Amino acid sequence: MSDRYLSFANSNAGRRLLGALGLPAPLRLERWRAGRVRPVDGALLIGGDGPLAAAANACLLRLTDQAFAAADGQFGLPRWSAEAGPKLKALVFDASAIASVEQLIALRDFFQPALKSLDQCPHVVILGRAPESLKDPLAASAQRALEGFSRSLGKELRRGGTVQLLYIGKGGEEQLEGALRFFLSPKSAYVSGQVVRLGAYSAQVADWTRPLAGQKALVTGASRGIGAAIAETLARDGAEVVLLDVPAAKAGLEALAARLGGRSLALDICAEDAAARLIEALPDGLDILVHNAGITRDKTLAKMSDELWSSVLNVNLRAPQVLTRALLDAGTLRDNGRVVLLASISGIAGNLGQTNYAVSKAGLIGLAQAWAPALGKRGISLNAVAPGFIETQMTAAIPFAIREAGRRMNSLGQGGLPQDVAETVAWLAQPGSGAMTGQVLRVCGQSLLGA
Amino acid sequence: MSDRYLSFANSNAGRRLLGALGLPAPLRLERWRAGRVRPVDGALLIGGDGPLAAAANACLLRLTDQAFAAADGQFGLPRWSAEAGPKLKALVFDASAIASVEQLIALRDFFQPALKSLDQCPHVVILGRAPESLKDPLAASAQRALEGFSRSLGKELRRGGTVQLLYIGKGGEEQLEGALRFFLSPKSAYVSGQVVRLGAYSAQVADWTRPLAGQKALVTGASRGIGAAIAETLARDGAEVVLLDVPAAKAGLEALAARLGGRSLALDICAEDAAARLIEALPDGLDILVHNAGITRDKTLAKMSDELWSSVLNVNLRAPQVLTRALLDAGTLRDNGRVVLLASISGIAGNLGQTNYAVSKAGLIGLAQAWAPALGKRGISLNAVAPGFIETQMTAAIPFAIREAGRRMNSLGQGGLPQDVAETVAWLAQPGSGAMTGQVLRVCGQSLLGA
Repeated sequence: MSDRYLSFANSNAGRRLLGALGLPAPLRLERWRAGRVRPVDGALLIGGDGPLAAAANACLLRLTDQAFAAADGQFGLPRWSAEAGPKLKALVFDASAIASVEQLIALRDFFQPALKSLDQCPHVVILGRAPESLKDPLAASAQRALEGFSRSLGKELRRGGTVQLLYIGKGGEEQLEGALRFFLSPKSAYVSGQVVRLGAYSAQVADWTRPLAGQKALVTGASRGIGAAIAETLARDGAEVVLLDVPAAKAGLEALAARLGGRSLALDICAEDAAARLIEALPDGLDILVHNAGITRDKTLAKMSDELWSSVLNVNLRAPQVLTRALLDAGTLRDNGRVVLLASISGIAGNLGQTNYAVSKAGLIGLAQAWAPALGKRGISLNAVAPGFIETQMTAAIPFAIREAGRRMNSLGQGGLPQDVAETVAWLAQPGSGAMTGQVLRVCGQSLLGA
Repeated sequence: MSDRYLSFANSNAGRRLLGALGLPAPLRLERWRAGRVRPVDGALLIGGDGPLAAAANACLLRLTDQAFAAADGQFGLPRWSAEAGPKLKALVFDASAIASVEQLIALRDFFQPALKSLDQCPHVVILGRAPESLKDPLAASAQRALEGFSRSLGKELRRGGTVQLLYIGKGGEEQLEGALRFFLSPKSAYVSGQVVRLGAYSAQVADWTRPLAGQKALVTGASRGIGAAIAETLARDGAEVVLLDVPAAKAGLEALAARLGGRSLALDICAEDAAARLIEALPDGLDILVHNAGITRDKTLAKMSDELWSSVLNVNLRAPQVLTRALLDAGTLRDNGRVVLLASISGIAGNLGQTNYAVSKAGLIGLAQAWAPALGKRGISLNAVAPGFIETQMTAAIPFAIREAGRRMNSLGQGGLPQDVAETVAWLAQPGSGAMTGQVLRVCGQSLLGA
C-alpha cells in the first residue's frame, strides 16, 4: 500500500494535489535526548523592543551559547546580519509593544532576513500581550493580528520549523524561561502554530536538568503508547512516578514501573471503588495528575450503540471528572498541583465516526477551561493537551489511506511520536507552569484540521 | 484540468484518498429565493426538555407547517417516529438541561432515529448554555462537550446538511426566532459546524419578509463578488443601501446601485479624506456598516515587499478601523447599529503565502472581539464573518489544484456562493441580531481547515 501512496505522491497530479494541501516533504525532526543540557543547540536571534525582550534576554545565555540581537548594541549582544551571521536555530521576537496596524511591519522587518538563514528544525517564539487584557480596541486588534502571522509563518517555515505565539500577562515574564526552554528546544519538536497565555505565578525550578525533582506523579493508561512515554519522561525529569492501568495490562505495567523506579497500580478507573483505592494508594499525596487513559469505539452516530457511546464517555470523561474531584476532596492532590488531561484534535474539530470520542474530548477541554479559575486559588493548574496524529499502536491500526492523510496533513508533513506528547505534559507538570491554566495545547505539527 | 481531477477522484486511489480527507460527493445545495415565506419547507422535529425547547416551540409554527415532537404530547405536537413520520427537513434539540456525562446520551437517543429519515439539505440546531456562564465545572464540561458532538455530526450528515450549536444566555431566548429563521432555512446553506452565543437584546423585527425595512446600510467593495451580493441581499430584506467602491469600479457600482434603488459612492477607503467624505455623504446617519472591501497580495514572507504588506493591511484592516471610529465619533453610526467585518479562514488558521492577508483578517477578528463590549453599551453589535472557499472571480484565479483542494475540503464538498456570505451578513444586520456580538461566524461549509 505504502508504495502506491508514494508513487501517487510523486506523480505530477499527486505532487500538485499534495502541494495544494500544504504537505511538504517530511524531514526527520530533532528530538530531545536525556542528558542534554542546552535548550538551543545553535544560534539564537532576539528582536523587538518591548519589555518582554528584556525579560527573555535575562535568561538567554542559559538557553544558548550563541545569542545575537537584531539591532545594534541591544542587550550588549553581537548584532546578527543575514550576510555575516551564522544560521539560526532559534528566533525570539517581542511584538508586545505593537499597538497599531502600522507597527505590524516590524514582523516582516525582523523575520524576512532571518528566514533566509534558518538552520534545520528552527524554533520561533513570538511574544505578545493577550488582546483581552488590553483596553484600546485597536491595540487589541494588532495583538490579535499576531495570531494570523504566527499561524501563517508556521505554514511557510518548512525544514521542520515550529512557531508559537506566547501572550504574556502581568507577571508572566517570571515564567518565561521555562516556556522558552520548552518552545525553543526539540522538546517541542511536534508543537507548532500554538497560542499560549502565561499569567503570574511564583515558583522556581531549582535544577533545570531535573525540573520535577521531589514531585509525585500519577499517570493513567501508563502501560504503553503515549502513557508509557509520559511516565518515562516525568521520571527522566526527576518525578517519582505511579503508573496506573487496567488489570489486564498488569505485567507490562509492572515491568515499566520497575524500570522507572516507580510503582504500579493495576486498577480499572471506572470501577466504583477506584477513587477510594487511589486515595489509599497515595497516602503521601500527589503533585502531578495525568489523565491519559482513553479508548476509541468508532462508529457513525446512525450505528452507535448505547454501549459504544457510554464506554467511551465513562473512560475518557467521567473517570477523570470523578477521580480528580475525589483526589481534591481527600486532599490527596496537593496545593500547587498540576492536572493534565489528554484531549484530542477530534475534541476541537469533531470527527466523522467519533461523536462519542469527540464529545468526551471536548468535555475534557471544557473541564480544564471551567475548573481552572477555582483551582487556581490553590495554585493548581489544569490544562488539556490535544494530540494530532501520533504514531502508536492505535494509529497503526487505522486503515492505510486515512492514516496516510492524517499523518501528512500538517505543517511538518509527518506524524508525531509519543515522546512529543510526553515532553509537552512534562513541561506543563513543572512547578513554574502554573503560569498556564485552563488552556488547550495541541501537539499536532500544526495540523490543518481545526475549528 | 477539471477532467484530470475528476478522473483522479474517481480512480481507486483517488477515492480512497478523498474519502480519507472526508470529501463527500457534492450535492446541489438548496438556497433561499426572494419571495419565499416559510423558513422550513418540510417537517421539523423538536426534542429535549430544557426551557429552550419551550422558547423555540413558541415560534415553531411560524417556521414550518409540519412540526413534530420527539416525545409524546410535548407542546401538543404530534409525535414523530422513524417508522411513521415524514422525512425531516429540520431538527432542533434543546441540550441545555444536560449537566452530566450520563445525560449526554440524550444526544444519541434523539438524533439516531432522526438520522435515518433526513430529507435533502436538512438543517440541525442544538441549543445549550455557554460553558463560561455555568458555575459547576462538570455542567460546564457537559455543555462544552456539545461542541464535539455538533462538529462531528456536521461531518457525518452528508446530503447537504448543516449543524450549529447555539449557546443561549439569559434573555437570549427572545432572539431565538431570528436565529432559527436563519439557521434552519436555506439562508444558512453553506454555514455548518458553527458555535454561536446569543445574549439578551431587546428589539423586534416587525415584518419577517422585510426584516431590514427602515435601515440604512453601507457596503464597501460593493461593485462585484461578495460585496455586490451583500448589497443585493440587504436591499432584498428592505434596507436602503449605499454602495461604496474604488473610483475605477464606478460604472459597475452605479449600475448596481440603480438596480437596487440605492446610492453609489466612488471612494478610496484608504484616502486621507475618506472618513470626512463618508460622514458628509451620510447626513441622516447609518444603521448597518459592512466592511467588505479587501484585497490579496500573496507572497511568502521571504519575498514579501513593504508595499505588498502595507497595501493589504491598509485596505483590509486599517481602513475599517479608521472609518468605524470616525463614523462612531461623528454620530453617523447610530445607536443599535450593526457592524460586520469580512474576515477569512486565513485569519483563523493562517495560510501559506498570506502572512499579510492573515494578519489583516486576524486583526479584524480581534477588533470585533475587543470592541464589542464597549459598543454594546450603545446597543451596537460588531461581528466578523469568515468566508471559506467562495466561488468568485478572486477564487477563479487560483491555480487549479489549490482551488480544487480548497473547494472540496469541507463537509459539503463544494465551494460556497457569494449569496451564502450575504445571507449571513443580512442576518447579523437584523435588529434582533444585537443578541450576538464580538464573535466570528464562518461561512465555509465546515471547512476542515482551522486552528
